[in-house]
Amino acid sequence: MAVSSLPCKTVLAGAIAKSLLAEVTTDLQKLERVPRLHGYLANKDPAARMYADWSAKTCRENGFEFTLHEVEREDLEDEIRHANIDDSVDGMIVYYPVFDTRRDQTLQWTVSMYKDVEGLSPQLISNMYQNIRFLDPPLNTRKSILPCTPLAIIKILEYLHIYSSFLDYGKRLFGRRITVINRSEVVGRPLAALLANDGAEVYSVDITGVQHFSRGSGLKKQKHEVNDMEGWSLEQCLPISDVVISGVPNEGYKVPTHLIKEGAVCINFSSEKNFNPDVKERASIYVPAIGKVTIVILLRNLLRLAQNRPQANGAH
Amino acid sequence: MAVSSLPCKTVLAGAIAKSLLAEVTTDLQKLERVPRLHGYLANKDPAARMYADWSAKTCRENGFEFTLHEVEREDLEDEIRHANIDDSVDGMIVYYPVFDTRRDQTLQWTVSMYKDVEGLSPQLISNMYQNIRFLDPPLNTRKSILPCTPLAIIKILEYLHIYSSFLDYGKRLFGRRITVINRSEVVGRPLAALLANDGAEVYSVDITGVQHFSRGSGLKKQKHEVNDMEGWSLEQCLPISDVVISGVPNEGYKVPTHLIKEGAVCINFSSEKNFNPDVKERASIYVPAIGKVTIVILLRNLLRLAQNRPQANGAH
Repeated sequence: MAVSSLPCKTVLAGAIAKSLLAEVTTDLQKLERVPRLHGYLANKDPAARMYADWSAKTCRENGFEFTLHEVEREDLEDEIRHANIDDSVDGMIVYYPVFDTRRDQTLQWTVSMYKDVEGLSPQLISNMYQNIRFLDPPLNTRKSILPCTPLAIIKILEYLHIYSSFLDYGKRLFGRRITVINRSEVVGRPLAALLANDGAEVYSVDITGVQHFSRGSGLKKQKHEVNDMEGWSLEQCLPISDVVISGVPNEGYKVPTHLIKEGAVCINFSSEKNFNPDVKERASIYVPAIGKVTIVILLRNLLRLAQNRPQANGAH
Repeated sequence: MAVSSLPCKTVLAGAIAKSLLAEVTTDLQKLERVPRLHGYLANKDPAARMYADWSAKTCRENGFEFTLHEVEREDLEDEIRHANIDDSVDGMIVYYPVFDTRRDQTLQWTVSMYKDVEGLSPQLISNMYQNIRFLDPPLNTRKSILPCTPLAIIKILEYLHIYSSFLDYGKRLFGRRITVINRSEVVGRPLAALLANDGAEVYSVDITGVQHFSRGSGLKKQKHEVNDMEGWSLEQCLPISDVVISGVPNEGYKVPTHLIKEGAVCINFSSEKNFNPDVKERASIYVPAIGKVTIVILLRNLLRLAQNRPQANGAH
């Protein structure tokens, strides 16, 4: 009996990013002016500096304008307020942490929702959880902005055809069971909500336990509801999940491979390797990292902000 | 709470047939001569006559030649032998039943495997079960012909992205669980084998019980193996199946809707309606009939036979 090679394919973020970037570039050419992003750096954190350099490079290489503002942290709020009313600015990104306290959140709230490339404004976050997809219902011409990392993962699932193009927009994950390991406010919880709003049965797992995010049988509810799954752990979630998404920021954490359903799609969004190498003996598709997709989503969000401006679509 | 419409989409065979036909037409234009199909009608069965008329119409409308031969049934074997060595004939189809006894099988065996548009020659059937995909290994330039109805269902699953384009050819159903209801020699059993050979876990169900067709964990086996599932019935198969395919030729038979997994893809290949209307309350995609795809597969097989001829690919 011939032993054939493992069926699992590793899909790299670079390939997915390339296909997304092509869409962004096409749409960019339809705009009358080049969208401009302002970056605000108010700390000496080398990681923040690196992210700033990386966003500058990505913007410029792909036809967007980028200006880095290095400011004192006490001046930052004023700088943001100024940019909020500056017509030449389409989007803003603040490189956190700034104060590294709760005060950072009030900085996030200062950024106008119409210029928030990261999708962190309270109204945008509320729209996301409430499954409200436009800023101007019922016209529905201006799309609400989603946070970059969760949206990157959604775009990866679309690319992999986990989203069914045969179903209606907003229901294309119907029938999919997805485990999301990590329930942080920045990625895990918004991601679970987005996936459930798109029709999936989502098991959101962290050290406190498992929560089920779902629109219910037949997606009868307009948005997801959350229920605690008493007594559940990965042992219950993984064997029934078509997709496993993990983002635990801990070098020691590994998803137990033997619990993963054969043929599942496994995606890691942690900077650590959450999956053991033997995941390729169980998964059908393995995406080891998503960073390159996330950066394209930043451009895509900037494009959306520019498209959303009244000048861009003639809706004065 | 707003009650939204059901997520289920009905996908009609016509749309799928159209997309397949476009491929066939493109490939047809690359051939130097027009492929010719001979049809043999040796009975007074009105259904056979209708099928003959339908194949004539489909061939002619799509740029293939078709000649109907109405013959005495005792002359049929000689007619077939003659066509086997007639260079102007690319493919043959016999409208069964002819004798309506086991003798019909020897007619099938008389048709040259190189002209068998229906894929019923013993060598072709053996290749199919053995997961041998070419007639000329290791060159692999001449594809083995598959029977029309099972291949139509496979093409439907490809169209619906149940086959993952990210996995290697021959493994693209890895991770999918599929129930096939009907284990006839003409459709149900070959279909179960083909799906398992492509990487699926298949539950083949008929009144005698359930059989599991699988290449084993990690698709380690080169072709599927079959195991009886003692004590299993639809109650075990349906709740774990991503796809349910039914072809029971019995007006009274209905797949129990409540056992179907929410979001499953349901395909009916019986001329009877095997699914109740309420299947749309469970399924994500429902394909109520497949006939229009099957007839395009007939053309596709004819094209393959013409492509397989030594003249066509220069491999004398």
